[in-house]
Amino acid sequence: MKKNILIIPGDGIGQEVTTWGKKVLEKIGENYGHEFSFDEAIMGHTAIEATGNPLPDETLAKAKASDAILFGAIGHIKYDNDPSAKVRPEQGLLKIRKELGLYANLRPILLFDELLDASSLKPEILQGTDILFFRELTGDVYFGEKNRNEDNTFASDLMNYHRYEVERIARKAYDAARTRNKRLCSVDKANVLETSRLWREVVQEIAKEYPDVETEHMFIDNAAMQLVKNPKKFDVVLTANLFGDILTDEASQIAGSMGMLASASVGDGTGFFEPIHGSAHDIAGQNKANPLASILSAALMLDISFGLQEEAKAVTNAVAETLKAGWRTGDIANAHTEASKVLGTQEMGEKVLA
Amino acid sequence: MKKNILIIPGDGIGQEVTTWGKKVLEKIGENYGHEFSFDEAIMGHTAIEATGNPLPDETLAKAKASDAILFGAIGHIKYDNDPSAKVRPEQGLLKIRKELGLYANLRPILLFDELLDASSLKPEILQGTDILFFRELTGDVYFGEKNRNEDNTFASDLMNYHRYEVERIARKAYDAARTRNKRLCSVDKANVLETSRLWREVVQEIAKEYPDVETEHMFIDNAAMQLVKNPKKFDVVLTANLFGDILTDEASQIAGSMGMLASASVGDGTGFFEPIHGSAHDIAGQNKANPLASILSAALMLDISFGLQEEAKAVTNAVAETLKAGWRTGDIANAHTEASKVLGTQEMGEKVLA
Ligand SMILES: CC(C)[C@H](C(=O)O)[C@@H](O)C(=O)O
Ligand SMILES: CC(C)[C@H](C(=O)O)[C@@H](O)C(=O)O
Repeated sequence: MKKNILIIPGDGIGQEVTTWGKKVLEKIGENYGHEFSFDEAIMGHTAIEATGNPLPDETLAKAKASDAILFGAIGHIKYDNDPSAKVRPEQGLLKIRKELGLYANLRPILLFDELLDASSLKPEILQGTDILFFRELTGDVYFGEKNRNEDNTFASDLMNYHRYEVERIARKAYDAARTRNKRLCSVDKANVLETSRLWREVVQEIAKEYPDVETEHMFIDNAAMQLVKNPKKFDVVLTANLFGDILTDEASQIAGSMGMLASASVGDGTGFFEPIHGSAHDIAGQNKANPLASILSAALMLDISFGLQEEAKAVTNAVAETLKAGWRTGDIANAHTEASKVLGTQEMGEKVLA
Repeated sequence: MKKNILIIPGDGIGQEVTTWGKKVLEKIGENYGHEFSFDEAIMGHTAIEATGNPLPDETLAKAKASDAILFGAIGHIKYDNDPSAKVRPEQGLLKIRKELGLYANLRPILLFDELLDASSLKPEILQGTDILFFRELTGDVYFGEKNRNEDNTFASDLMNYHRYEVERIARKAYDAARTRNKRLCSVDKANVLETSRLWREVVQEIAKEYPDVETEHMFIDNAAMQLVKNPKKFDVVLTANLFGDILTDEASQIAGSMGMLASASVGDGTGFFEPIHGSAHDIAGQNKANPLASILSAALMLDISFGLQEEAKAVTNAVAETLKAGWRTGDIANAHTEASKVLGTQEMGEKVLA
């Protein structure tokens, strides 16, 4: 198989972690006889510094021309503390999602038994948890019209959904539920929001096409609670952009750390693969970041964009083996971990490669 | 002291639990020589059934005339499954919040040591947690203009804030932080939302008036994660209506159960006190609901609306004693609880009264 892969390291720890996602892809290419060629492009704060634009035209052109994209992270503390900044790193990420039509963000909450202890939740609550989130990614209050009045006394963002936006992601989520435990939970706030009421109506309609899948509707406040109380009850979770952002970060604690979670954004064309963790500037460049989420993002790419299930499985297994052998990065170590087993980004990456 | 208290039981388990909040207030009145007089009114599904209106004029008039309101719960499954219903129970609650100017919703996450085990979080993660949420309650996407186009292919809700709305709740939260551990965490999504950027700007300004309080700004996705990972790091949390709805339900798992959490809504006039749990129709009328959140709501009323700290303390102590003696309702019992110690609503209420 011949594929062009674009690497966009982005900001903060993005560079360090994508290095290892890429190395794993190279190794898979060698071992399984695929021709993966790589290119690199800039985005976010890094791109603002270099060009003034968080998503330079060149990056977008390369992205559109590639078969799949491995992305690192975005964001910089400088803008977070300056709410009036007009140009912001996140605009690059939001724009590429929109331009590539990446309307479905898949976030599997994969629990490695070895990490049961790394979570703040009790092991008996966690054991057996396996959730696949479908977060809508190109609509909602993220992309609605924004306003600020002249004297800065009022600001607004339009939360909104079109019927077709809900339909297409709902179908993807139901299709996935069919291949899993056949349960789908749609999360909204239909007791308050008109957007959610439309969301719920559409999901109720699509549900009729999938009589073999059991559908539940849950309010977002309740879902945020149930996810901590009893995560095992969820199989596929389908939700809007904002609610999905919140729930999946919360769910990262099920997997023990944000450093473990990969995500796949798909839609009309090229797929986009990224860890759900952020740019973590506080530890950037210190060889401390956990490269596993980037490596698992590479596995998702092999599986979802290239249909290479065996190769994807090989990567996930390598991660599981490494954890089984006791190796940890700081974020997934706990009080019982021997100091000698706690590795830096590079050493962890090498263990998985081996 | 002479006070008129309005009881609004609302829907589902509301009737059962407010009965006990009221009994506790009566008992405090007797013991401390206060003249508490009570009236009752309807709201929500109950009111729709009786009058067609989720907030009848009579209820609103009584509410405005009272010194404080003890509310039960709202909602009914019938409307949840019918997204196109025009009249909905929740409209009653939203309208009374707006009409009474209840812009600040205080939700203390009080952890009783006896319930450390009832939580899905590890005891060592929980121990020492003490959070006070300030949730803005009369603005945000809850009250912004709602739209649905004619052919039902589009829906929207306007997320918005006015500067004065942020200022007044920020001041209340900072005032509270001063009397506590002097740390305030403001939660928003300023990397994406214009509304959040205004929110952050205003909080940054108000922060200057409180140099003795340490301010942190956190994105909602990160906050939802940190709340599970390390709840102890929070003291006062200040946030918008929607984010507060989500975070406080999530935080209920810190206290072991939603059945334990009380809330106070205050603002321009009469205070409004309610459990954060919902109407729980699945257990309504079965003597299963936990009355402690309603009893603790009564304690908040004594403290916040009437300034009766000693009386409030007496109620909280009675709850703590009851838990210490081993009594539990089903929601806060665990595998180690003896069956004989698991009580119904009424029996639990009586233990606390005694
Ligand atoms: C960086 C930010 C814009 C982004 C989002 O909110 O979508 C991130 O939190 C994510 O979840 O991918
Ligand atoms: C019933 C509902 C409208 C309400 C809300 O979302 O505010 C409830 O969840 C709450 O938290 O008080």
